[in-house]
Amino acid sequence: MPAPDLLAGFPLTLPWPVAWGDMDAFAHVNNVVYFRWFESARLAYFEAIGWTAAMAEGGVGPILARTSCAFRAPLTFPDTVTLAARAVDLGEDRFTMHYRVVSERLGVVAAEGEGRVISYDYRNARKAPLPPAIRAALIAFEGSGLGAGVSET
Amino acid sequence: MPAPDLLAGFPLTLPWPVAWGDMDAFAHVNNVVYFRWFESARLAYFEAIGWTAAMAEGGVGPILARTSCAFRAPLTFPDTVTLAARAVDLGEDRFTMHYRVVSERLGVVAAEGEGRVISYDYRNARKAPLPPAIRAALIAFEGSGLGAGVSET
Amino acid sequence: MPAPDLLAGFPLTLPWPVAWGDMDAFAHVNNVVYFRWFESARLAYFEAIGWTAAMAEGGVGPILARTSCAFRAPLTFPDTVTLAARAVDLGEDRFTMHYRVVSERLGVVAAEGEGRVISYDYRNARKAPLPPAIRAALIAFEGSGLGAGVSET
Amino acid sequence: MPAPDLLAGFPLTLPWPVAWGDMDAFAHVNNVVYFRWFESARLAYFEAIGWTAAMAEGGVGPILARTSCAFRAPLTFPDTVTLAARAVDLGEDRFTMHYRVVSERLGVVAAEGEGRVISYDYRNARKAPLPPAIRAALIAFEGSGLGAGVSET
Repeated sequence: MPAPDLLAGFPLTLPWPVAWGDMDAFAHVNNVVYFRWFESARLAYFEAIGWTAAMAEGGVGPILARTSCAFRAPLTFPDTVTLAARAVDLGEDRFTMHYRVVSERLGVVAAEGEGRVISYDYRNARKAPLPPAIRAALIAFEGSGLGAGVSET
Repeated sequence: MPAPDLLAGFPLTLPWPVAWGDMDAFAHVNNVVYFRWFESARLAYFEAIGWTAAMAEGGVGPILARTSCAFRAPLTFPDTVTLAARAVDLGEDRFTMHYRVVSERLGVVAAEGEGRVISYDYRNARKAPLPPAIRAALIAFEGSGLGAGVSET
Repeated sequence: MPAPDLLAGFPLTLPWPVAWGDMDAFAHVNNVVYFRWFESARLAYFEAIGWTAAMAEGGVGPILARTSCAFRAPLTFPDTVTLAARAVDLGEDRFTMHYRVVSERLGVVAAEGEGRVISYDYRNARKAPLPPAIRAALIAFEGSGLGAGVSET
Repeated sequence: MPAPDLLAGFPLTLPWPVAWGDMDAFAHVNNVVYFRWFESARLAYFEAIGWTAAMAEGGVGPILARTSCAFRAPLTFPDTVTLAARAVDLGEDRFTMHYRVVSERLGVVAAEGEGRVISYDYRNARKAPLPPAIRAALIAFEGSGLGAGVSET
């Protein structure tokens, strides 16, 4: 397991195996794989706060508006990474996720990223406030670590 | 363009660019990419015979029951492949697709494959005969090349 | 964990998380993902018998000549699958791998597959007998379960 | 073809087919696909300025340090996108690429992105100035459109 301090402040952590096929012709994990990993962390976070089930019922779900990744150290097979996610800058109809990828083999942060998540009413095709139950679950899940910009509407 | 005789008998051909990211750590196009290519040829075939639109209306669509690939020559970026597909062994509720991948750069067949396609009623969750209009369109699209096993039910 | 009898006879088993992004527009795990999973099981098997390290030293490594998959039950996120692999039909310069994918959530075999693996001398660009140490390690790893066609050359 | 003004200022443009398998369970092109497309545009750009061949000879090649994408409009199969890339902020050992994805079917910019490219000496494992011939080829390829921050070292 990676050093706990590399994951401090992230309420969601998820171990994930590096596949041999994640590597490209440079024999390093390809850049697009990190965004698939961010997505897996994001979806695990949504499961944790109940948004997946709530979306099926109410039709209000997440849209990814923008995302980014900074690559810190190249990864190779075999390895296991820990994917980590937390929410910051919680607004009425949006928040930002911070991601971190920690390599078990290297013992370092291999990548960090961000994603802007918008709450969207799929039935009426427009932005919508975060459902109150989801908002409350997110705040509880983050505990005292929720980043700057929280507005308790 | 590849030599026409390498594509003889395939009513559906589709040029497709090889991406650098299709290569793996052995610096050849990874095996899973061929199945994505087969899928692209299959979907182009379904578009050609109108099954995509018909499925949206009637709820009877294709399921892939099994698939295989024989790799003939390794591929590298940059290249453009021609994806080819045809139907054989047409049954009441199924047919088999033959696939071929031809490399423009090498001028050879890089891979051949098969896929068993089952006609499925998604609304009632069971196999269903091919819709007659789709069956007729498939036979017309294949022309005289349709393989053995055709049963004109 | 899946019922052990679904994995009986497979010396290599490997748990693997289903990613949300493994699903396609039909909201099931896409067919190409199974071949990535087979590859992960295959590479884990090669690690187990020491072929990865031996290839780096001696230049004789595996090539995948053909592969296939039969889809038994559709998979969805979230789930964890167990990937299983074993070798059969061991020849002088080749063997066949059998793969199985077992769903933890469904408790069933979701897919079965095969892959023909050829031993290849990458430095001299031709088929080559399996290195004796790898052959011995494979037979020991399989134990009494090694399938028909073994020829103890 | 997309409206030319959506691609103005991009010396590299590349048509690319949307695969059915690029869509995820929301039935839109998945976010990771855009980064694969950016990579394809980036590699085509490197081919255009001769960096791929030069890297094989001299050992100095590109590393992707960070990348981002802003999603403007969801995409679906079938469609063809035009991938576009240009270089800005050319430094001694780095530059930034701007990417654009234009949908033929929608006639709009579907996504925009950036990537920070570092020139790296793979043989000595450290940053290295852009090879002069590559630097000259990049400037010539961009013509008068090269963005702010160019330092003609």
